Amino acid sequence: MVHEHILRVRYGETDQMGVVHHPNYLLYMEEARTAYMASLGLPYSRLEKEGVGLPVRKLDLRYRGSATFADELLVITRVERIGAASVTFTYRIERSGEGLLLVTGSTELACVDLKQVSRPPMMLPEELREVLGRAASADA
Amino acid sequence: MVHEHILRVRYGETDQMGVVHHPNYLLYMEEARTAYMASLGLPYSRLEKEGVGLPVRKLDLRYRGSATFADELLVITRVERIGAASVTFTYRIERSGEGLLLVTGSTELACVDLKQVSRPPMMLPEELREVLGRAASADA
Amino acid sequence: MVHEHILRVRYGETDQMGVVHHPNYLLYMEEARTAYMASLGLPYSRLEKEGVGLPVRKLDLRYRGSATFADELLVITRVERIGAASVTFTYRIERSGEGLLLVTGSTELACVDLKQVSRPPMMLPEELREVLGRAASADA
Amino acid sequence: MVHEHILRVRYGETDQMGVVHHPNYLLYMEEARTAYMASLGLPYSRLEKEGVGLPVRKLDLRYRGSATFADELLVITRVERIGAASVTFTYRIERSGEGLLLVTGSTELACVDLKQVSRPPMMLPEELREVLGRAASADA
Repeated sequence: MVHEHILRVRYGETDQMGVVHHPNYLLYMEEARTAYMASLGLPYSRLEKEGVGLPVRKLDLRYRGSATFADELLVITRVERIGAASVTFTYRIERSGEGLLLVTGSTELACVDLKQVSRPPMMLPEELREVLGRAASADA
Repeated sequence: MVHEHILRVRYGETDQMGVVHHPNYLLYMEEARTAYMASLGLPYSRLEKEGVGLPVRKLDLRYRGSATFADELLVITRVERIGAASVTFTYRIERSGEGLLLVTGSTELACVDLKQVSRPPMMLPEELREVLGRAASADA
Repeated sequence: MVHEHILRVRYGETDQMGVVHHPNYLLYMEEARTAYMASLGLPYSRLEKEGVGLPVRKLDLRYRGSATFADELLVITRVERIGAASVTFTYRIERSGEGLLLVTGSTELACVDLKQVSRPPMMLPEELREVLGRAASADA
Repeated sequence: MVHEHILRVRYGETDQMGVVHHPNYLLYMEEARTAYMASLGLPYSRLEKEGVGLPVRKLDLRYRGSATFADELLVITRVERIGAASVTFTYRIERSGEGLLLVTGSTELACVDLKQVSRPPMMLPEELREVLGRAASADA
């Protein structure tokens, strides 16, 4: 099972080239990943309240087309890899309806202990590992 | 008829105080206003293609509460005043469900001619005036 | 004494109208206000560490011209009013060099106690009141 | 010659984890790249006016530390590779003074013809190729 999320481009997300400014796709990916985790029954907001953070440690993006104001976009998110203390998501962003591929990318999230000031790495909590594992095997 | 629009707070819209950073409510208002105009059959993207721009000329905001990550917000938009070459929208942003009022505000949009380089003011096109007029009287 | 701050418009701060997207002037005002407070010997980062927050409670903006990519802007900040538990700053943003006025505005900041979860209003700490008071009388 | 650019973290660039939200480093890289090109006598704003666009086509980032509000950052930019119709910049972002490495990354920019509606790829204009070439060989 991959996760599909729909959103609409805001005016302020465009730049003077008339298209979505490139960093904003990371906001779309974050929104989609957040919706994915909520749909799995493990909202990221709850994780943080329990002291578990998932900051982005590494990312790559490839732009293949441009979204414009008011476009409806489809963000397809997949759990790619579950490490001991990290998880990697991959994304495809398409113009909704058309299926035209605009952006692909991946983000690797580190798992960190928010209860300690230095926020050291920590193993993925068991519940998170299970939930992501089920999602990943359903994706395959 | 007032227009109601629902959205969810993104992680990146928060700041280190743990709440939505104050300028971001203007993005929510813009998204709501865009959705309102589309629902009236006159999408802002079409207006711009026809050479009519509605840049914000004046705004005020009052913050009464704080939204946090993943909150579902309700933005209630109303056409407040239709001038010869401007239109004013007012907004109430509540935490959805609770009805707790977070922010109120208004934005006055100038109508400008995008076909001219200097973008001078222009009268509201007749179709826009009618559509907004119907919306405003339905609001009253 | 008013405070003068110079900054340059980023590409990503423009929108498809080819000018700075309207909420971004609030980022410029925040940057200028932060630089002002630091220049007064009372950096906002230190205030927050001591448990004193100054969230924006109210603001208004009036747009009189448009900044474009790579423009150098001058933000002139003034302490307008010092309340028991609030302070109001006003701003003028000009295109640097030309002196062309682009935006005027004000932000009223509430003083809140970050050490309490509910963040209740608190009186301005004495040091802050004095520093702002000296700045305001020098402005007059 | 590598290019060094200094900037200061804005409040609104932090998120509720208390650090700079990850996409914002792309804004810092864009600001640094813009300053680099201006310092080479070929401001990007002039290129666009002449019909040459350099949109980001590909990027990768690696986060090694966190910047916080009001930190002064040093962005070190280098011309990495000059293709027929593209140019790649690499970046190191450090906390200024300390030299602590926070982020590394690269962005590949495509050269496109803004005079055509479809914005097809175009060869780097000769002047741009020369200027970048001199910068790259000075870097080595």
